[in-house]
Amino acid sequence: MAKEILLLHGPNLNLLGTREPEVYGRVTLEQINQWAGIHARRRGVELRAEQSNYEGLLIDILQTAATWASGVVFNPGAYTHTSIALRDTISAIGLPVVEIHLSNIHARESFRHVSMIAPVCIGQISGFGWQSYLLGIDALLAHLGLLPAPE
Amino acid sequence: MAKEILLLHGPNLNLLGTREPEVYGRVTLEQINQWAGIHARRRGVELRAEQSNYEGLLIDILQTAATWASGVVFNPGAYTHTSIALRDTISAIGLPVVEIHLSNIHARESFRHVSMIAPVCIGQISGFGWQSYLLGIDALLAHLGLLPAPE
Amino acid sequence: MAKEILLLHGPNLNLLGTREPEVYGRVTLEQINQWAGIHARRRGVELRAEQSNYEGLLIDILQTAATWASGVVFNPGAYTHTSIALRDTISAIGLPVVEIHLSNIHARESFRHVSMIAPVCIGQISGFGWQSYLLGIDALLAHLGLLPAPE
Amino acid sequence: MAKEILLLHGPNLNLLGTREPEVYGRVTLEQINQWAGIHARRRGVELRAEQSNYEGLLIDILQTAATWASGVVFNPGAYTHTSIALRDTISAIGLPVVEIHLSNIHARESFRHVSMIAPVCIGQISGFGWQSYLLGIDALLAHLGLLPAPE
Amino acid sequence: MAKEILLLHGPNLNLLGTREPEVYGRVTLEQINQWAGIHARRRGVELRAEQSNYEGLLIDILQTAATWASGVVFNPGAYTHTSIALRDTISAIGLPVVEIHLSNIHARESFRHVSMIAPVCIGQISGFGWQSYLLGIDALLAHLGLLPAPE
Amino acid sequence: MAKEILLLHGPNLNLLGTREPEVYGRVTLEQINQWAGIHARRRGVELRAEQSNYEGLLIDILQTAATWASGVVFNPGAYTHTSIALRDTISAIGLPVVEIHLSNIHARESFRHVSMIAPVCIGQISGFGWQSYLLGIDALLAHLGLLPAPE
Amino acid sequence: MAKEILLLHGPNLNLLGTREPEVYGRVTLEQINQWAGIHARRRGVELRAEQSNYEGLLIDILQTAATWASGVVFNPGAYTHTSIALRDTISAIGLPVVEIHLSNIHARESFRHVSMIAPVCIGQISGFGWQSYLLGIDALLAHLGLLPAPE
Amino acid sequence: MAKEILLLHGPNLNLLGTREPEVYGRVTLEQINQWAGIHARRRGVELRAEQSNYEGLLIDILQTAATWASGVVFNPGAYTHTSIALRDTISAIGLPVVEIHLSNIHARESFRHVSMIAPVCIGQISGFGWQSYLLGIDALLAHLGLLPAPE
Amino acid sequence: MAKEILLLHGPNLNLLGTREPEVYGRVTLEQINQWAGIHARRRGVELRAEQSNYEGLLIDILQTAATWASGVVFNPGAYTHTSIALRDTISAIGLPVVEIHLSNIHARESFRHVSMIAPVCIGQISGFGWQSYLLGIDALLAHLGLLPAPE
Amino acid sequence: MAKEILLLHGPNLNLLGTREPEVYGRVTLEQINQWAGIHARRRGVELRAEQSNYEGLLIDILQTAATWASGVVFNPGAYTHTSIALRDTISAIGLPVVEIHLSNIHARESFRHVSMIAPVCIGQISGFGWQSYLLGIDALLAHLGLLPAPE
Amino acid sequence: MAKEILLLHGPNLNLLGTREPEVYGRVTLEQINQWAGIHARRRGVELRAEQSNYEGLLIDILQTAATWASGVVFNPGAYTHTSIALRDTISAIGLPVVEIHLSNIHARESFRHVSMIAPVCIGQISGFGWQSYLLGIDALLAHLGLLPAPE
Amino acid sequence: MAKEILLLHGPNLNLLGTREPEVYGRVTLEQINQWAGIHARRRGVELRAEQSNYEGLLIDILQTAATWASGVVFNPGAYTHTSIALRDTISAIGLPVVEIHLSNIHARESFRHVSMIAPVCIGQISGFGWQSYLLGIDALLAHLGLLPAPE
Repeated sequence: MAKEILLLHGPNLNLLGTREPEVYGRVTLEQINQWAGIHARRRGVELRAEQSNYEGLLIDILQTAATWASGVVFNPGAYTHTSIALRDTISAIGLPVVEIHLSNIHARESFRHVSMIAPVCIGQISGFGWQSYLLGIDALLAHLGLLPAPE
Repeated sequence: MAKEILLLHGPNLNLLGTREPEVYGRVTLEQINQWAGIHARRRGVELRAEQSNYEGLLIDILQTAATWASGVVFNPGAYTHTSIALRDTISAIGLPVVEIHLSNIHARESFRHVSMIAPVCIGQISGFGWQSYLLGIDALLAHLGLLPAPE
Repeated sequence: MAKEILLLHGPNLNLLGTREPEVYGRVTLEQINQWAGIHARRRGVELRAEQSNYEGLLIDILQTAATWASGVVFNPGAYTHTSIALRDTISAIGLPVVEIHLSNIHARESFRHVSMIAPVCIGQISGFGWQSYLLGIDALLAHLGLLPAPE
Repeated sequence: MAKEILLLHGPNLNLLGTREPEVYGRVTLEQINQWAGIHARRRGVELRAEQSNYEGLLIDILQTAATWASGVVFNPGAYTHTSIALRDTISAIGLPVVEIHLSNIHARESFRHVSMIAPVCIGQISGFGWQSYLLGIDALLAHLGLLPAPE
Repeated sequence: MAKEILLLHGPNLNLLGTREPEVYGRVTLEQINQWAGIHARRRGVELRAEQSNYEGLLIDILQTAATWASGVVFNPGAYTHTSIALRDTISAIGLPVVEIHLSNIHARESFRHVSMIAPVCIGQISGFGWQSYLLGIDALLAHLGLLPAPE
Repeated sequence: MAKEILLLHGPNLNLLGTREPEVYGRVTLEQINQWAGIHARRRGVELRAEQSNYEGLLIDILQTAATWASGVVFNPGAYTHTSIALRDTISAIGLPVVEIHLSNIHARESFRHVSMIAPVCIGQISGFGWQSYLLGIDALLAHLGLLPAPE
Repeated sequence: MAKEILLLHGPNLNLLGTREPEVYGRVTLEQINQWAGIHARRRGVELRAEQSNYEGLLIDILQTAATWASGVVFNPGAYTHTSIALRDTISAIGLPVVEIHLSNIHARESFRHVSMIAPVCIGQISGFGWQSYLLGIDALLAHLGLLPAPE
Repeated sequence: MAKEILLLHGPNLNLLGTREPEVYGRVTLEQINQWAGIHARRRGVELRAEQSNYEGLLIDILQTAATWASGVVFNPGAYTHTSIALRDTISAIGLPVVEIHLSNIHARESFRHVSMIAPVCIGQISGFGWQSYLLGIDALLAHLGLLPAPE
Repeated sequence: MAKEILLLHGPNLNLLGTREPEVYGRVTLEQINQWAGIHARRRGVELRAEQSNYEGLLIDILQTAATWASGVVFNPGAYTHTSIALRDTISAIGLPVVEIHLSNIHARESFRHVSMIAPVCIGQISGFGWQSYLLGIDALLAHLGLLPAPE
Repeated sequence: MAKEILLLHGPNLNLLGTREPEVYGRVTLEQINQWAGIHARRRGVELRAEQSNYEGLLIDILQTAATWASGVVFNPGAYTHTSIALRDTISAIGLPVVEIHLSNIHARESFRHVSMIAPVCIGQISGFGWQSYLLGIDALLAHLGLLPAPE
Repeated sequence: MAKEILLLHGPNLNLLGTREPEVYGRVTLEQINQWAGIHARRRGVELRAEQSNYEGLLIDILQTAATWASGVVFNPGAYTHTSIALRDTISAIGLPVVEIHLSNIHARESFRHVSMIAPVCIGQISGFGWQSYLLGIDALLAHLGLLPAPE
Repeated sequence: MAKEILLLHGPNLNLLGTREPEVYGRVTLEQINQWAGIHARRRGVELRAEQSNYEGLLIDILQTAATWASGVVFNPGAYTHTSIALRDTISAIGLPVVEIHLSNIHARESFRHVSMIAPVCIGQISGFGWQSYLLGIDALLAHLGLLPAPE
């Protein structure tokens, strides 16, 4: 049976593509989920995507994912910099999590340079637009041993 | 003619695989360069790899790359956290640069959480071992428009 | 058709007037909403008031307001000092927002002196009790060009 | 009629005992609630236990408790260190609250050393596992004058 | 006899409208004083306006105002962030003072985020251009009980 | 033979009850020692109480306790915040130590929020007056396995 | 000919005694100058007293004092904590200066704990009300060798 | 019967005059005690002088002084900057205490600029050599109402 | 008609040469003004020199200079490190300003390392004694295009 | 024989003029060296110019300069803010060094405001483009007594 | 007559070897004193060893050592990081002191990285176990001219 | 075969003895190497000495030393405080390293108090001039078990 992974989007990411296209581009969250799904299926895994503006609901989703997912690609949005609760959830569920960001958070305001989440993730990918999600899937699959070194 | 990109390794990365294998694994820098080369060629680009322990030589290499490369995948090693000079070089040469790290720098000592380099790069990838290099190549190619969205 | 603006109250503001009247006075949130409504209608605009203790719901409300409101008068309560998510929402929706506070936050504990919200608002009004809401409405209307200079 | 007190658990505490038993032990939240209930009844008070991963719902629960409870034993989990909103709720409702923690937060990462909640509580108990809850009940009852000095 | 209030402008505000109109607009200080005067008179109070670039003279003016004014609307300009002396004057004279700013100081350089003055004022209004002055007058009058709640 | 535990009081605690009763109450240190002794004996352990204003003597007492005590309930008073030497003693002697405080140190001056001692103790109890000592005894006994969960 | 010393008062000290008598007492600046004059004359020196709210004028007065005074007793008021200019003046004129304060600045807000002036003065006297001035005169005279040790 | 005051010297002050005379002068502690005694007796009060290098003994002496002294002139030496315990003692005993220093601590290393003791004293006198002790006696007597204003 | 530039000296610079010659040398402000005048005239521009110890007057002078001067060479003295008001004036008047200092401020106390003024000036020259003024004139003239590159 | 001075350029300055001309202008390093040479020769001194991207080579060059040069005009580029080693070299060789910068470092990112080099130089010149080099030569010559005051 | 030096051990060092041997080894303080004595005698000097847990007694011992010792090898233990009093004693007695530590304090918690003592010692030796004491003796003897360079 | 150890000197140490002899003494690096060689040979080990001003070359030398040396005595000079790269090299090569300094770095500027290198070394010796090198050799040999305790 195919492995399944969770693609989780934090606060305000539901607005992608429909607002401020000059900043965030015209790619919608739906489009990203679709491309990510194709990308994942080509590598033999299924994707379930979820989004919430609620820190509490994101915690619920992550806790439930522990029962079905092999790993998580997570864009925590603004909660990246403040949520110890999400950090604790990731520590508790024991799933491998890859933190990703659309924009290069290290090139923005200084309060966006620090991630409360990254220290409990496998790693962090930041700055490559919607491509960050695809890179995150590859990074997670490599960690799961599903993406071998090229020969 | 095929595009060329520079794969640049900073201080101490020449030791990879031959020392402390329990920490950094048994993959050598040579092996990474080889895998990265295969990975790049499959995407239609050529790779040139260089390594130096000298901040000054890394600057020289980057300056020269401006004359032949389409972009750079750069693991600045320990200079990540201190080198304003490398930051200035990247700003000056105008090439797209992807900063990558083997280990998850956000999960290590606090002085490794800040990157002087990342703010002038496209983005940063950190924590996926040798896979970080392959992800970095994909990120760079996507930025260059050579890696289209999956349909 | 009359313009509409959103009057948004953050956490704990539902307790106004019914508890600790010696501190916050005996004016209830309902009373404030009523006075603010009268005040707004006299200036030719309609008011919709909402309150929530959930950061996530406040984000939802603000996102939705982008579809009907001309602007927002927002008392973010305690989320003022910690919520990057609400800040991002305000940036994303593009509506003019006036941040207001009942108490003078600059005269309280030092962690209340900094607002994560204010830098993306038109301005901030702090310290005038329920009158802060009415001043906030005037400030918003002036910004919208609905309150001309006196001649 | 017997006094009633609220036993309130913050984010991720629903996972207790079922995950990472080597870290948090095999005692579940249900078990703690049961033991705490017995402990309280022996001292003549009834206990109602609630848990939520939502900061907003915790605020709601605390606000409602003001209508029926004599006091609160509260483990705010990760919100301890960031939630000014919960602090404001506790100030507003006027109930005596005892802050408790399973682990010794003063022996963990430095961002866990500071509590935004403790300054508005009667006191704080930290580090005694599930026993912290029972100690918290005793501390609350003593504050309420229900636990006299031994003669 | 009509109440009188002082409208006090700090350093560089005499330049308003005549220089950098693309930044500060074309409204002059004279115009603001005139509009503010009309606005105040409509509410039954008289206004006296003063401006100085001297911290010492601003102190003198405030000290003297204690003998004739019912309150002060004060734009301390750059002294906002550095003048403990003006803070002490406001504490000493016992008049209600409303601090106002043309620009949103919370959205500018970080050294402008902190006000030495605000903790001893009734409140602060920041970011609404010349309208800030009119809002400040209303805030002061409400504090003085001259602006009742709308019925 | 009954277990023995040390009840150790730091600087200025000898003044309890005889001075500033409006602040610290009228309960003397002798009274606390007596109540704590009764409380402990009811749980089958003996108590020895000591007090000193000397950091050096507190170190001596703790070092000696390693030869006879099963654990320590320790109110380090003002040395809580400054004494690395007491911290080192607790680390060295290997006895379980519970840190307790009469007042809620987290609600006082900021220099009282940090404990140099707590990171090497089992846990910390703060804010419950003389009851803190009794809670501390229970916490220590539970740690020693002498206070079972209620059935 | 009798020595002369300058008694210099900084901003807001002209208000002494006439405002907020419950805080600063009913002693006026004139009264202090008179008592200080008597106190000085009994020790054989003449006093000239000056006050200004202007930092610039205080600098002028100190510069001029270099031509006639043997030393200065200086209460810099709020400029204590911010004025590098007054510090430079004191360094430049080479007169011995005693810094004095009516209130105990070390027991007030933290921004009043640091003096920019004290490092270039002989010493600082703080907290003794109008008596601080008389103590300052004695301290200055002792420094000038005019107040011998008691035999 | 004559009032009595305690003259208390902290660590290393017993070395005065016998070592490093080029720095601290040739006046011994004995000489200072003698001069201070004469100075006090001329004002009608008796002096008892004590010195200790032990923080604990200084606490003991201050606690005992509460039974016989009307006030304390205290040079806490190096403990000024670190001893919360001595601060607590002074708060507890309720005697008026004047903090004095031989050298100008505000002109020395930055760690000597902050006093943990001063906030609970009447005031602080710093920088006037042995004269600081005599000024301290006068300051204490004035506080006790034994040194009237000059007429 | 010849261009005119303002040579502006801040607080305490009127003392130059007459006091502390071993520190600041024997060159007076008058001498500097004379040499600077000759230097400027040789380059075809006229100089007007002003000095004040008043921050307010320095603001007035700069504001007025906007009506007649082509640029300013400004030694802000101690106001360099504290005056946001002077910074705002320079921003407002739009004249090119060169900040100069006699001493090397970067080699002095750390509070002199930061300039509030420099970020709104063309540049800063620091450390060359009276020669700093002449260098400042050349720097300003080069900025104004009056000092061509040597051929 | 003519005096000789070293003109030393740090990392990335070899790129001047050929890249990012819209930022740094079209003047090349070669051009600057030529203009500086002419400027120096007109004042009777010879110039040797060197550039390196290596911190180590810059140290070597400075050490060697001690054998032939009378002084140094040094643009340390990015090493300004991090190199304690270059600071130590300048201290060790005893030559007078003038630190210069093309851009106004005080108006850029905050990490560029602090110079590790300036405290051991005669002074610093910052912000005047290629003219900074010529001003630096004049500043050095004035320090060497080769540029007399204008008569 | 043979020179004598003091070997002084601070708090908790009396526990060496008898407790936590897996951490500190099985070498006791007595053994160290014996080895150090042999080591010193071979170099022609006598050793007196003392230990105390009291900061005050350590001060007393150091003060007395000034009457008989030629120098001190001092392990201040935990007082290293907090004791300004011991620092002042070392400054006052004028004896050469070598600070030594068993463990590498620079590799432990950050509060152990700073020494209040080292700045007034000849130097510091840290990290070599009991060998640190012998190295300390050699370092002291070299300073005293008793250990010549090898030929 | 005799053991070999590397004696490594960082930037500017090649200048020893030939410049600023009043500061660093007249002992040259050559002399130190000779004395250290004799000292080592007497203890049965051979010494190879190297010096470089290049951080990169120091890394190269350390990496190579891993193939032949038993340990390193390293004076990193100014790189002590900034080089994470050298720290990483020491971690990677696994050789025991002793950090030594000629001067007492803890008594100099505060930026010299922190060592980036020491946490990965056995220990640190600082302040004993050329003797520091000999002490460093002994410390290294003791660590290697080549210097037994004296019997």
